[in-house]
Amino acid sequence: MDSTVGIGILGAGTVGGTLIRRLVDDHAAIVAKTGLDLQVRRVAVRDPGKPRLVDLPAGVLTADPAEVVADPEVRLVVEVMGGLDPAGDLVLAALDAGKPVVTANKELIAARGPELIAAAGRSGVPLLFEAAVGGGIPIIRPLSETLAGEQIERVAGIVNGTTNYILTRMADGEEYADALAEAQALGYAESDPTADVTGADAAAKAAILASLAFGTWVGIDDVPYEGIDRLEAVDLFWAHFLGYEVKLLAIATRTENGVSARVHPTMIPSDHPLAAIRGATNAIFVSGPSIHELLFAGPGAGGEPTATSVLGDVIDAARQVLAGAQAAPPIRFSSAELADFADVATKWYLRLEVADEPGVLARIAGTFGDAGVSIKSVWQEGEGSEAMLLIVTHRAAEHRQRQAIDALRRLDAVRNVAATLRVESPEA
Amino acid sequence: MDSTVGIGILGAGTVGGTLIRRLVDDHAAIVAKTGLDLQVRRVAVRDPGKPRLVDLPAGVLTADPAEVVADPEVRLVVEVMGGLDPAGDLVLAALDAGKPVVTANKELIAARGPELIAAAGRSGVPLLFEAAVGGGIPIIRPLSETLAGEQIERVAGIVNGTTNYILTRMADGEEYADALAEAQALGYAESDPTADVTGADAAAKAAILASLAFGTWVGIDDVPYEGIDRLEAVDLFWAHFLGYEVKLLAIATRTENGVSARVHPTMIPSDHPLAAIRGATNAIFVSGPSIHELLFAGPGAGGEPTATSVLGDVIDAARQVLAGAQAAPPIRFSSAELADFADVATKWYLRLEVADEPGVLARIAGTFGDAGVSIKSVWQEGEGSEAMLLIVTHRAAEHRQRQAIDALRRLDAVRNVAATLRVESPEA
Repeated sequence: MDSTVGIGILGAGTVGGTLIRRLVDDHAAIVAKTGLDLQVRRVAVRDPGKPRLVDLPAGVLTADPAEVVADPEVRLVVEVMGGLDPAGDLVLAALDAGKPVVTANKELIAARGPELIAAAGRSGVPLLFEAAVGGGIPIIRPLSETLAGEQIERVAGIVNGTTNYILTRMADGEEYADALAEAQALGYAESDPTADVTGADAAAKAAILASLAFGTWVGIDDVPYEGIDRLEAVDLFWAHFLGYEVKLLAIATRTENGVSARVHPTMIPSDHPLAAIRGATNAIFVSGPSIHELLFAGPGAGGEPTATSVLGDVIDAARQVLAGAQAAPPIRFSSAELADFADVATKWYLRLEVADEPGVLARIAGTFGDAGVSIKSVWQEGEGSEAMLLIVTHRAAEHRQRQAIDALRRLDAVRNVAATLRVESPEA
Repeated sequence: MDSTVGIGILGAGTVGGTLIRRLVDDHAAIVAKTGLDLQVRRVAVRDPGKPRLVDLPAGVLTADPAEVVADPEVRLVVEVMGGLDPAGDLVLAALDAGKPVVTANKELIAARGPELIAAAGRSGVPLLFEAAVGGGIPIIRPLSETLAGEQIERVAGIVNGTTNYILTRMADGEEYADALAEAQALGYAESDPTADVTGADAAAKAAILASLAFGTWVGIDDVPYEGIDRLEAVDLFWAHFLGYEVKLLAIATRTENGVSARVHPTMIPSDHPLAAIRGATNAIFVSGPSIHELLFAGPGAGGEPTATSVLGDVIDAARQVLAGAQAAPPIRFSSAELADFADVATKWYLRLEVADEPGVLARIAGTFGDAGVSIKSVWQEGEGSEAMLLIVTHRAAEHRQRQAIDALRRLDAVRNVAATLRVESPEA
């Protein structure tokens, strides 16, 4: 049996460049382990004239990605250019032409997943995207294959290494701007960090995790998200003082109200395993009635780990190409109800700057009570014009917590609602 | 397309019984999520007359497992009877008849893996065994699929929940016999706990993990193992005192001398994540040059988690049955050199009962020196006839450590080599 599979690669940046080097340098090791002769046939790059780390034969590089997709010697397409356009239409064209696609593009899968998965199904070819979430951590396959028979209830984790690095530094006392600058200097954050620090990157990953876990498509627009860009180091200090750490969590849950996914900075108990995840590491918990709780942790980004996940998908897709199999769609998506974020219940932490005068706490407590939110703990710090209250509430729906905060802002005794954070026990 | 797949199940014990209940109770949910109509056609049980939790139609139950394999309506065979005989020949017969097989039987895979994988390859059908290691934790697929392109260097973890439960109790001060009796009363240990406490169960899992990680078949007889049945609680106390915890680890490594796998009680630093894994939980670290370190953790045993892994494999195999695909063998095994266990280097902990007299330490240190082992730390406790030395060595090959211990036993000043334990930093 001929074991050669010609591969076309769209993009040769950090992940694409690493993948090409691995396919060339580890060629013999891959043949020995898998029996597959994987050949890099065409690579689309911005500038084919630029020097490369790996020497590729003449004619392999092109500036036109459509040429890569159309090349008859390319039997499998890897999309690692990122972004929605033109990546989306190129992936669609490859699938329509009956070529399996491997992509690391979480934004694309979150935005056009159902359309692309349907196209793969029509052509009977696989569309694989292990590297789209968790970088080098195997999480997509476990969710969609090993756990296909589990009624998953919750997926919660740290899925953005850049923000976890920044939060780790902030927990050590640095202010956000300094921690971000440091992350940029070390290459953990891009020069434009918007997608990471606003939570948009994590939201795309949350959408994908929720969709695979619950078998209901959750689109990128269905995921409310908040980032870390307005956090102050002082609140990480007070969180720690109260027995919590602050992490940017992606949380997908199945409740009586439907499924939901969301991303926000979250205070979690200091003794929870996620609180110990420092630096650029990612960690994801999956819970269900039979498996209880599974933990997957490892490097969530970076060229090498991500290229490993892409390469695993390439090997799988190449096997299917050679077996000539009709690929079954990996998962079916039903149209279950999505829960309204306003109904999602969490605890809240608030830092209030208050007038230090008799009766203030009673008025504040009354305001929470009017909104149907009960208070779990109150801590006063400072006196006079420096007086500050740290409040942690019991669980209540988002809309009630927001009602309480709006009412607090109207109280004369509250000079400023200086900070708010949702509080969760990840298993709750 | 007809989406019905008839399933034959060999064994209806803890895992098999749970699987049957899930296939029946969750039938609609599985159809919704996967499009597969999975039907329990035949089940082999010891006593077909015994009452069952799930009502199955007449004629489904049989006492003859060969009937299940031969039934033309059975297109996929699940082996959850355990043991080598008759399970091995039944699995082989199913594969030879072109029926995919899903098994949870680590003993069988470790003992007859290459033969069974070759049979699956000849028939072009999958042989899946996610549940053979780590119960509900997805580890087999990540190793053999997602990480197929990684040059894995090390797999190390806690793969036996029974012994981890016992060790957790012993770390709290209970003696081995009491902790075992408690584990048996709680159902964590079987009435005959031999396979667990001697390390044999973990050794079979270590063989499978090493084989998949390194692409070199490591048989059950290639895995030296020691259990926890001769440990004393006092050594867990002293280990903790010195900054370590004791865990039964399965360790597979690729070194310059070849690949190796082994199982033994191991002192690991108290601040390593594996030290925090308590009770019946399993946790496995996978290391390689690109992925750095991945962690997989969750419930390592029990009917429900294990049945989830079996069900994931059943869904995958059923998809392949319906797609009519020729399955490619999942991994190829080369015949790389196996390292000699005598050459594997670790640190050692020793607890010596010694004569408390001048010059003793010099003689003991000289004995280590003669064997080429250097001492990292010494701690003396007690005086006179109660004198005791706790020694931790630097890394040295197994044969040197054994030479030192043999020589210590011949020293007059050493009344007893009361305990020895290997010490590792799991990442070292």
